[in-house]
Amino acid sequence: MKEVRVLEIKQSVFADNDKQAADLRQELKQKGIFLLNLMSSPGAGKTTTLMRTIEAMRDTFKIGVMEADIDSDVDARTIQKSGAKVIQLHTGGMCHLDAEMTRQGLDGLKVEDVELAILENVGNLVCPAEFDTGASKNVMILSVPEGHDKPLKYPLMFSICDVVLINKIDVLPYFDFDMDKCREYILMRNPNAKIIPICAKTGEGISEWTKWLAEEVKSWRAAE
Amino acid sequence: MKEVRVLEIKQSVFADNDKQAADLRQELKQKGIFLLNLMSSPGAGKTTTLMRTIEAMRDTFKIGVMEADIDSDVDARTIQKSGAKVIQLHTGGMCHLDAEMTRQGLDGLKVEDVELAILENVGNLVCPAEFDTGASKNVMILSVPEGHDKPLKYPLMFSICDVVLINKIDVLPYFDFDMDKCREYILMRNPNAKIIPICAKTGEGISEWTKWLAEEVKSWRAAE
Repeated sequence: MKEVRVLEIKQSVFADNDKQAADLRQELKQKGIFLLNLMSSPGAGKTTTLMRTIEAMRDTFKIGVMEADIDSDVDARTIQKSGAKVIQLHTGGMCHLDAEMTRQGLDGLKVEDVELAILENVGNLVCPAEFDTGASKNVMILSVPEGHDKPLKYPLMFSICDVVLINKIDVLPYFDFDMDKCREYILMRNPNAKIIPICAKTGEGISEWTKWLAEEVKSWRAAE
Repeated sequence: MKEVRVLEIKQSVFADNDKQAADLRQELKQKGIFLLNLMSSPGAGKTTTLMRTIEAMRDTFKIGVMEADIDSDVDARTIQKSGAKVIQLHTGGMCHLDAEMTRQGLDGLKVEDVELAILENVGNLVCPAEFDTGASKNVMILSVPEGHDKPLKYPLMFSICDVVLINKIDVLPYFDFDMDKCREYILMRNPNAKIIPICAKTGEGISEWTKWLAEEVKSWRAAE
């Protein structure tokens, strides 16, 4: 197997992350690159969901993936098997990515020929929500074992996401997870959130998710 | 049900958290108060584990619990049912507690008559590991659905914890979780870590955990 590229990215020296993020988003739009920021708790299934997403969309779009972690390259190695362009980003202990770190990652990934760039953010429901990465859309995964009360405890994450994927629905029978209450709590934080129950392991629900994503990428690129 | 007390705690104005933490630890030792810092990802089972812990130990020690969250008081309401003294701390959006925030929580809890104080930290595998709270011991919960590779990705958290509880072992048959690999990765980060597989839901493994904790509280208080 080809070696995975690992890039050490550094925290921004810029005070105004919102400005950096807006500039990056504008640049990406001009280049016709859609950037998806994927967030979740540790172990909610970001990488497995990405594998399914790439599988469903690689014939339609040129895809590039940035795997952000504090350490290890296990996720980038997994993604590499999909055939997608991939780079492992190490955050130097940082709990999130800001716009400048994302820019370093995009430069490292060499996204010129990429139409859909995906950032798998650090597994964390708090800090990544506070920093605009410059992404076109924000998506988060909440997994069934984490419980339906998470929107009550981590309000900002749920309020900034365009889509909430509820993953691991195959284990619903083994957990006290109330899907109706979960929907209610998510919509309380974000009335516009699109909620899609999925099982990345079996592929259930993935077509609804990738259909939404494909539409978004197309309309983003059409308006460039 | 009696109303849960909610305290808004504020980030430390002190630059030197290590000094604040050492001072707090020393003060607690003089007062004979053992402080346990409990950490994990969101939804790994901190509150359920605490309920089991209180149930097993409330006849031996006077217990007080601080529930730290960004928002909501669902965890404090749950703990209140155990009969233990409890306070809900709101972190003002902060992703972790530092020593000064912990001190504010202990003051709010009025720990004078408490022998075992437990801090349920914000659900997060990154930031809480970076800030010494002044705790006597650090414990973390890794739940089976999160996967056995987490020690590779979140090195600091595993390296600073005295005990790693591997929770939700009742669902092992439904997940690709390799217990041997998990032990190997944890010990790679921290050769001295005590690893205890538990199921907070059924109570499995809890006696080994509470036996360890009771010994630690006793020896801490004996040496005061």
